[in-house]
Amino acid sequence: MYDVNAIRRDFPILSREVNGTPLVYLDNGASAQKPQVVIDAITQAYAMEYANVHRGLHFLSNLATEKYEGVRGKIARFLNAGDEDEIVLNSGTTEGINMVSYAWAAPRLQAGDEILLSVMEHHANIVPWHFLRERQGVVLKWVDTDLDGSLDTQKVIDAIGPKTRLIALTHLSNVLGTVVDVKAICAAARARGVPVLIDGSQGAVHMKVDVQDIGCDFYAITGHKLYGPSGSGAIYVRKERLAEMRPFMGGGDMIREVTKDTVTYADPPMKFEAGTPGIVQTIGLGVALDYLESVGMDAIAAHEKGLADYAAKRLKGLNWLNVQGTAPGKAAIFSFTMNGAAHAHDISTILDKKGVAVRAGHHCAAPLMEHLGVTATCRASFAMYNTEAEVDALIDALDLAHELFG
Amino acid sequence: MYDVNAIRRDFPILSREVNGTPLVYLDNGASAQKPQVVIDAITQAYAMEYANVHRGLHFLSNLATEKYEGVRGKIARFLNAGDEDEIVLNSGTTEGINMVSYAWAAPRLQAGDEILLSVMEHHANIVPWHFLRERQGVVLKWVDTDLDGSLDTQKVIDAIGPKTRLIALTHLSNVLGTVVDVKAICAAARARGVPVLIDGSQGAVHMKVDVQDIGCDFYAITGHKLYGPSGSGAIYVRKERLAEMRPFMGGGDMIREVTKDTVTYADPPMKFEAGTPGIVQTIGLGVALDYLESVGMDAIAAHEKGLADYAAKRLKGLNWLNVQGTAPGKAAIFSFTMNGAAHAHDISTILDKKGVAVRAGHHCAAPLMEHLGVTATCRASFAMYNTEAEVDALIDALDLAHELFG
Repeated sequence: MYDVNAIRRDFPILSREVNGTPLVYLDNGASAQKPQVVIDAITQAYAMEYANVHRGLHFLSNLATEKYEGVRGKIARFLNAGDEDEIVLNSGTTEGINMVSYAWAAPRLQAGDEILLSVMEHHANIVPWHFLRERQGVVLKWVDTDLDGSLDTQKVIDAIGPKTRLIALTHLSNVLGTVVDVKAICAAARARGVPVLIDGSQGAVHMKVDVQDIGCDFYAITGHKLYGPSGSGAIYVRKERLAEMRPFMGGGDMIREVTKDTVTYADPPMKFEAGTPGIVQTIGLGVALDYLESVGMDAIAAHEKGLADYAAKRLKGLNWLNVQGTAPGKAAIFSFTMNGAAHAHDISTILDKKGVAVRAGHHCAAPLMEHLGVTATCRASFAMYNTEAEVDALIDALDLAHELFG
Repeated sequence: MYDVNAIRRDFPILSREVNGTPLVYLDNGASAQKPQVVIDAITQAYAMEYANVHRGLHFLSNLATEKYEGVRGKIARFLNAGDEDEIVLNSGTTEGINMVSYAWAAPRLQAGDEILLSVMEHHANIVPWHFLRERQGVVLKWVDTDLDGSLDTQKVIDAIGPKTRLIALTHLSNVLGTVVDVKAICAAARARGVPVLIDGSQGAVHMKVDVQDIGCDFYAITGHKLYGPSGSGAIYVRKERLAEMRPFMGGGDMIREVTKDTVTYADPPMKFEAGTPGIVQTIGLGVALDYLESVGMDAIAAHEKGLADYAAKRLKGLNWLNVQGTAPGKAAIFSFTMNGAAHAHDISTILDKKGVAVRAGHHCAAPLMEHLGVTATCRASFAMYNTEAEVDALIDALDLAHELFG
């Protein structure tokens, strides 16, 4: 049985108040809170077990290296990668996707080659491709979402053309909550020889992910959304793609030999991990993944499905609220605007006064905002520790905002 | 009065034992330990004050943003930058130098253009330039160190030619402890219109740094060597250079507008800070800098000068030990090999048995190793919390290693 109250007690921040009222934290799409086990692991790492990794032979360095390197296997298991050497450790999705842009795409794509994107991508999965457009004439092709916020699988497949060199899609929209059928798209892409990158920033948080079953070439995750430390993350890269990539950042640890005249590189994944890594963050991410697996990703998904259904029903009752995205099977992420003059920022400010933390703005998804015909929305995004009572608190706070602005 | 025992009590790990004997941590060149105030700041940030920065309007997001953004000014003051907008926050020196390579140098340098380096650079300040050699025909020119490990200022200046587009130098060698007269070199370079990048990974830890007085264009620092969290850091970039740089990584926070067809960028420094940053690491780095300033960089430098003199004298007494680097004013970093067959790794293993943590290997400075005619050294690198008693412990452990291998 999913004991949400027990889970809540694992997260110290959830017992605090803001503005004199209990915190209702619904900004999980931006970043999730951290369980005490993660905080304790960070403290232990710094207070008793800290040293730089890989290059030492002393006790603390070996200890830190063992803990740090152990996380690669944990991430591989979390994503069901076939081999832990397909996991490149980094600081999060932004670095992961930029690595693919610089190290895989930039040296391979020519002017006129196409990258296929959905209109609901996050800027992290747009701007690195705009760089290739600006710098080398790559063409960005877009697939729009349907009216309910669904991404039509067949539309994506039909958009694959002879010049398509990469498909880059979110697994789960950070604005609409839409889940994309990435497995069907990967199968069609693979049949046409087109690699697929999945932005798993949100997807890996809310569903069990199996990169082998999905059949993608790249799957990027970000630790701070997975209840882990800021500045942690990883990207799964299929072996064949790893072999095609030139290095991204240069520095210590990623070389085999350096002379004045030449440089040779370490084998993947080290080839893509330059310099002293985010040692303690990565160790903390490993503990966060252990925590998630102890609860169970399927159990978390089921709990969040209950929240999504309840929130959808209650939000529907507010007939002055426009909720964006009602795709079947959508995750517990709700973006909305209010009829009338109230700006999203004003609404979020009222909600904050009642302790309800939501985000307001374009959510780093400006092309989607344009497609939806809005400049900004409020977004309430739920996590494993949220409750139906918190949905009610959101509704009450929205009622107040409506009274004030309506 | 510098109370090293009081300082030691601030660092919890220093009271632990390894291998049944008190820890003597002399691997500070690889990474420094963390004071309790830094660990507490991290705990507080995650347990009570965590949210994503910049894009929220709720209480916790505003609080996190205020704490995070406050660090930019702290770093600016620590380096005496003229304007805090010249500080780009990042994950450390490796990212900082790669940013300069990708964002400033790559689009400006042509085949045949030269980058001037010293032979004692760390791979983080070599490999990003090798990329430009491999990818676009840039030429790397090297200045060797003298026999005592000094870098002759005039030799560097004389090596500046009509094709020199950048000088990239360490402030303080991570292997030899040599301090480079970067101010004189910057003055000469500026007269010839050549920008200078300083790798301050070690320099900023052991000396008071004033980037305006030095007159450099780029100064990279790394937080984990500055007693701050892993995955934290920054680079100072002179305004004129900032204006010349195209973006490095693309994603959230670094844009002004994104559409399907176009992208425009935020002003520096945000232009160079894509995605969710290392929020808590950066907050921790700010606390580490506060801690350093409360002790005083000049006081730390004086303490370490005493250690350097004492260690130099005691190491000189071991006539079977070859210490690399005796440049005047060198920092408390000692690399050495032993006469006879003992490999550096074996020596470090014996030292570790006695609780003395040193590093063995090429120290990410392979061209220097080649120049010195060695494949590896042991390195004992001291910090603000080390003592003369720890120098003695090192000597005793070396005596034991000599007995075993000599």
